[in-house]
Amino acid sequence: MSQTGLADRRQALMGAATLFYETPIEIVRGDGVYLYDESGRQYIDMYNNVPCVGHAHPGIVAAMQEQMATLNVHSRYLHEAILDFAERLLARHSAPMESVVFACSGTEASEIALMMARHATGGSGIICTDATYHGNSTEVKKMSARPVVDAQFRSIPFPQTFRPLQPDIHGAALGELYLARVQAAIDDFAASGVPFAGMFVCSIFANEGLPDIPPDFMSAAVDLVHRAGGLVIADEVQAGYCRSGQWWGYETSGFVPDIVTMGKPMGNGLPLSAVAASAEHVATFRRNTRYFNTFASSPLQAAVGMAVLEVIENQDLLQSSAAVGAYLRQEMKSLQQDHEAMGDVRGCGLFLGIDWVTDRQSRQEDRQGAIDVANRMKDKGFLLSNAGAMGNVVKVRPPLVFEKQHADQFLTAFREMLTE
Amino acid sequence: MSQTGLADRRQALMGAATLFYETPIEIVRGDGVYLYDESGRQYIDMYNNVPCVGHAHPGIVAAMQEQMATLNVHSRYLHEAILDFAERLLARHSAPMESVVFACSGTEASEIALMMARHATGGSGIICTDATYHGNSTEVKKMSARPVVDAQFRSIPFPQTFRPLQPDIHGAALGELYLARVQAAIDDFAASGVPFAGMFVCSIFANEGLPDIPPDFMSAAVDLVHRAGGLVIADEVQAGYCRSGQWWGYETSGFVPDIVTMGKPMGNGLPLSAVAASAEHVATFRRNTRYFNTFASSPLQAAVGMAVLEVIENQDLLQSSAAVGAYLRQEMKSLQQDHEAMGDVRGCGLFLGIDWVTDRQSRQEDRQGAIDVANRMKDKGFLLSNAGAMGNVVKVRPPLVFEKQHADQFLTAFREMLTE
Repeated sequence: MSQTGLADRRQALMGAATLFYETPIEIVRGDGVYLYDESGRQYIDMYNNVPCVGHAHPGIVAAMQEQMATLNVHSRYLHEAILDFAERLLARHSAPMESVVFACSGTEASEIALMMARHATGGSGIICTDATYHGNSTEVKKMSARPVVDAQFRSIPFPQTFRPLQPDIHGAALGELYLARVQAAIDDFAASGVPFAGMFVCSIFANEGLPDIPPDFMSAAVDLVHRAGGLVIADEVQAGYCRSGQWWGYETSGFVPDIVTMGKPMGNGLPLSAVAASAEHVATFRRNTRYFNTFASSPLQAAVGMAVLEVIENQDLLQSSAAVGAYLRQEMKSLQQDHEAMGDVRGCGLFLGIDWVTDRQSRQEDRQGAIDVANRMKDKGFLLSNAGAMGNVVKVRPPLVFEKQHADQFLTAFREMLTE
Repeated sequence: MSQTGLADRRQALMGAATLFYETPIEIVRGDGVYLYDESGRQYIDMYNNVPCVGHAHPGIVAAMQEQMATLNVHSRYLHEAILDFAERLLARHSAPMESVVFACSGTEASEIALMMARHATGGSGIICTDATYHGNSTEVKKMSARPVVDAQFRSIPFPQTFRPLQPDIHGAALGELYLARVQAAIDDFAASGVPFAGMFVCSIFANEGLPDIPPDFMSAAVDLVHRAGGLVIADEVQAGYCRSGQWWGYETSGFVPDIVTMGKPMGNGLPLSAVAASAEHVATFRRNTRYFNTFASSPLQAAVGMAVLEVIENQDLLQSSAAVGAYLRQEMKSLQQDHEAMGDVRGCGLFLGIDWVTDRQSRQEDRQGAIDVANRMKDKGFLLSNAGAMGNVVKVRPPLVFEKQHADQFLTAFREMLTE
């Protein structure tokens, strides 16, 4: 159907979500890293982290088909596969994660994590950053307000070295500056009579724009939070599952969280999310909430979630994410030297951000420039987007099966775009 | 695996959800209305409303398999199938529903409905009942508190004729009594300076125990809410999709809601939920929230959701739900005459509740009796549960493909159980 035809019928969804690109595309088929529009045109997908093992992966399709044809019920009956999946998932963590609660979406995982931290500590005050997103429920979206105004939440400036909190302060001193803001938030909760519950951050600050952060900032922030009796929630919905070139973003950022949320890539497109923590924290959460989720902990989630883990391990996508990502980053870094607009190249593994600026000296964010890059690269057959606190970061986040040959094709087109 | 073995390994889920039955069962396969445990024993499923067209329905499995093998992406690209599904779903409504927002779970649908009512009215105060459940997020679960204590929520005693609010008041006068509580809640919001947003109820008061309600109560309550500037949210997560013998519970209860939430049966087990309302309310919601849900409005949800609608229509499960449900209800009613413990037989379509009592005169709730019935019928091969405000209502809620022959098998076993 023509795009006009689809647009005409959009009353049924009343606009729905904002579409990507000035001329939105209608995708009809996917295969690995490739997406195809209705005219048959092929695109290399460099945006989608949900289909982490590739679009329409036959192993995932088969696992889903087999389970649906056998059984899919809720979790008030015993079944073994969800235990197998839980144990396999927990074993992937290097932090001490003993138990897991399954849900359907990242938002639901964030809700669970908030409740878990609050029940475990008896507090309610949560520190987040000033440019974050952890989901869209009434409670969780309070953390995305600009500015954060709710009594139970305090935001800190997200840590970054590229546009430091004070222009003349760098290195360890800059880390101290951000840590002082964490402590100030803790102190402010105490002064306001709001018992402290913890800190909730994306392990790699993805929505903030993948900033490089002062060395040791996260481990020191964790210490401050613990000293005040709080827990640290690591949002691994975007950061996890080998995305950063390590299994978890908290490994890349060098800290040990108390509670971890996981989501997007877990089911390669099947709604599936999870929260992991110590057995004690999970037990406290379950005792207080008697949490039940109709569609979660199901045989379907178990079968598909397990199949995704198996593909990642069998195809060694961890190693591939690290290696292909490092190659792409290095090539982008060398391109950056000749191109004023590429203010910064950041990120790890298969999640890179190019900070688009109006000029290198002032580092003034160029949001429209980043949007133009995404649109122009789309016309060349590569799907990107823009992100970051100011929307000026070109976001590169392909499925984990993105290979060096795809990086080379992209680099050729990107160089061409830069010289146009 | 033995049940002991599974129990030993439950640290990975730290108890997870409460299991059904004194001796929990391990279900390994489903087919239509039948479930099978690991020993091969067959059960007739008289509990599960999620697999509405039957366990492992080949048409649903095929639709899911085909779509996953083709494409599954988020909704920031155009795609036609979600519009087809949205239009087909909206056409099923007899109330004026023009637009829909898709999500993954009933909780997410409740969150959307709350936000929609609040943005549309500019208010925040929501009336619910005192024995309800609309989901488990921080905001939505405030409605399940006993008692409801949040400033933004007021609960009313759920309407019922079996144990009326005042023992000596019946009929239209009883309706007036409940309506006065609705008005009192509205007035209390006004007195407290909480602007009114509306009323949120399950259309058939499922968690309350499927009460018979005073005639015209719901339509009169809607009038009160509208007169005060509020909107009425009908929770059709359990009530909808032909469950009550009509397409929607609001038809059975005789009212026209402003906002409708839908969930459980929509995807026959795939996480899929939705909120429908006027184009204006949906547009206001979208403008204020820019709502986006990674896993919702996907080609997978569209394909599976559409397949479920097609099976319901092609197999005329609406007519079947009404007819088989009426037959089962009538037979249970006649059994009731000789069995003191069956205090009341209620419900419509394939959703019946038998109010278990210690004696007919006092109508004293017998929760343990209802639990015993579920356990004893499980031993006879029929899966039921208990529900209701006091947990004393035997809940009968089979997949919509439950036929008269299954009802007859159940009735034979139920009579046997009663005489034991």
